[in-house]
Amino acid sequence: MSFSNAVAIVGVGETDYSRASGRTELALSLQAIRAALDDAGIEPRDVDGLMKWWVDTSTEAEVAANLGIPDLAWWGEVNQAGNVGAPLVAHAAAAIHAGLANVVVIYRGVNGRSGRRYGRGDVTGQGGRGAGAFTEPHGLLTPQHGLAMVARRRMHDTGIASRHFGMQAVAQRRHANRNPRATFYGRTLSLEEHQASRLIVDPFHLFDCCLETDGGGALVLASADRARELGKPLVLIRAAAQSGPGVGSPAVRGAKRLFDMAGIGRGDVDVIQIYDHFGPFVLFALEDYGFVDDAAPLVEEGGTDFDSGRLPVNTSGGHLSEAYLQGINHLIEATRQVRGESTAQVRDVRFSFCDTGIGTGSVILERGES
Amino acid sequence: MSFSNAVAIVGVGETDYSRASGRTELALSLQAIRAALDDAGIEPRDVDGLMKWWVDTSTEAEVAANLGIPDLAWWGEVNQAGNVGAPLVAHAAAAIHAGLANVVVIYRGVNGRSGRRYGRGDVTGQGGRGAGAFTEPHGLLTPQHGLAMVARRRMHDTGIASRHFGMQAVAQRRHANRNPRATFYGRTLSLEEHQASRLIVDPFHLFDCCLETDGGGALVLASADRARELGKPLVLIRAAAQSGPGVGSPAVRGAKRLFDMAGIGRGDVDVIQIYDHFGPFVLFALEDYGFVDDAAPLVEEGGTDFDSGRLPVNTSGGHLSEAYLQGINHLIEATRQVRGESTAQVRDVRFSFCDTGIGTGSVILERGES
Repeated sequence: MSFSNAVAIVGVGETDYSRASGRTELALSLQAIRAALDDAGIEPRDVDGLMKWWVDTSTEAEVAANLGIPDLAWWGEVNQAGNVGAPLVAHAAAAIHAGLANVVVIYRGVNGRSGRRYGRGDVTGQGGRGAGAFTEPHGLLTPQHGLAMVARRRMHDTGIASRHFGMQAVAQRRHANRNPRATFYGRTLSLEEHQASRLIVDPFHLFDCCLETDGGGALVLASADRARELGKPLVLIRAAAQSGPGVGSPAVRGAKRLFDMAGIGRGDVDVIQIYDHFGPFVLFALEDYGFVDDAAPLVEEGGTDFDSGRLPVNTSGGHLSEAYLQGINHLIEATRQVRGESTAQVRDVRFSFCDTGIGTGSVILERGES
Repeated sequence: MSFSNAVAIVGVGETDYSRASGRTELALSLQAIRAALDDAGIEPRDVDGLMKWWVDTSTEAEVAANLGIPDLAWWGEVNQAGNVGAPLVAHAAAAIHAGLANVVVIYRGVNGRSGRRYGRGDVTGQGGRGAGAFTEPHGLLTPQHGLAMVARRRMHDTGIASRHFGMQAVAQRRHANRNPRATFYGRTLSLEEHQASRLIVDPFHLFDCCLETDGGGALVLASADRARELGKPLVLIRAAAQSGPGVGSPAVRGAKRLFDMAGIGRGDVDVIQIYDHFGPFVLFALEDYGFVDDAAPLVEEGGTDFDSGRLPVNTSGGHLSEAYLQGINHLIEATRQVRGESTAQVRDVRFSFCDTGIGTGSVILERGES
């Protein structure tokens, strides 16, 4: 018994994005949660479920105590790095659907620039434990080191080139230039600037890499029935999927589950958000999820621009140009697109797609009748 | 739409229990999982969901790779210490009910004696972070330090005494003496021996404290429809609840949710398992869950013995006398009681209750018609 369209995202919120928040990660999470609850019109005392990024430092118990939650009935995590946003939505929706919780808040708060910087080996390296014992001695200490190998291989296999990565980065920067919350709101980017920017790890140029951000974001989920009572534009969770280790790409396997649950085709999707720790993976995901066979001609024609009428992608600016909040900002933007509240609003959005990390989780949101 | 009786426990398994396994924690988990899958009659390739104790060192990705799972569709955790067993059952049941996974394995593998010993401050202390900053400087470094305060207060408030704790320890030892898997299978315990045993932390005597164990355990969950095809005694999940921070006891709040979902009364329960890191908490839980108003007369009359016809509790020996596997052995025993396969089998079990940690999670299992 799927939860398709039985659960809704009823509130979204975020803090300001900065390089030095001057607040604790707990304070960032609480600020974002209060904003999302205000957006929903729900009081903290009505929250009975919490989910956080596995790597988040603010425990559910601390957040519950600080919010004054009188009876926490449900919480949990998914053991991965940044790429857990959509899986958390799937878990929370299943819990609400099963009656284990009524109102679930999903939160992320991090000092990603002034605190622990995720691009550094001392943060993301495993110290030679686990699989890292085989790769770290060869210098693969951080996500960018390992993912650069994947990107290079893909370029070799398909012919996609750095200039295509640049075209996507430029499209996202245009979106950020319309978004006052975005780190790069006031700064344009040209393809030439992208191509001339320094290599961080071949083939990743500077502008292929995500920002480092201090900030927080939160979502509020409740049943569709409860959502209708709140009187806001209705954002239904049409489908959600998690995908992990196995044979072949998690995106390909996850996409099958996602679209099977949704009962719609790729062509029905109006707007797309994709986790862009590194910009090239946006184009790879467009192919792996089956939106296009070849992403190169799409970006050559500007097809990922919000007003292209084609496949608008990362309409808030994404991790490259808005903020690196590990996908919660993508989920917030996917929600705003359904509500008609984006700063780079796509016309007549019914179905809004969001991937929250190299194919390991995805959701489809749908505009509902209030 | 609750998952009540729509999901089943279709397999249970464990390793041998020892003080020095000579195996890695990953190997212990895999051994237990294979045993549980063999018990269920399910192949590893059919597993598409995994859940583990948050503190478990064997990641879902490692377990998936070692089992040869072709498409891991769902996994997750609950951020607590040992007390997550029943919450994991609730999460897994919700996922199966929602169609996010078909076969979910819940596992725990730990070298709790030869590896990291959970009774030591360097393992369970928080190094002065979080709430520990206020308690650790005063010597409250380990679970037994903090929980001793709770137990003393309860003794003061209700008049329950150390001899009552001893009576429960003796009842569980009798159960262990019937269970060849139990650490204390061959060693009896008298109330006098309990009372004469040394104080570890007042009021906990040695025999009020759980064992330290190397070992592993696993459960396999699937839909009730799938369970019926497997042709084994049917163990349905009638209800499951998680309970966390809030106003008042999590057990009291969780019990309300649990029995509301189950739609039965306390008097309908035939056999009980309760997480016994420290034996006194078994008696406190019997009161908090509403099984008795006062646990003292119950144990004075031997009412928790498996053949008492009253309220049999911890019929495998529990953490005090079977093994300290952080509640997975309680869930396994709760399942075996429904199947009629316990070594201290209670007659005509229909409803089997299990708490997996000071009220923060509980399940009710029901014998189904195959």
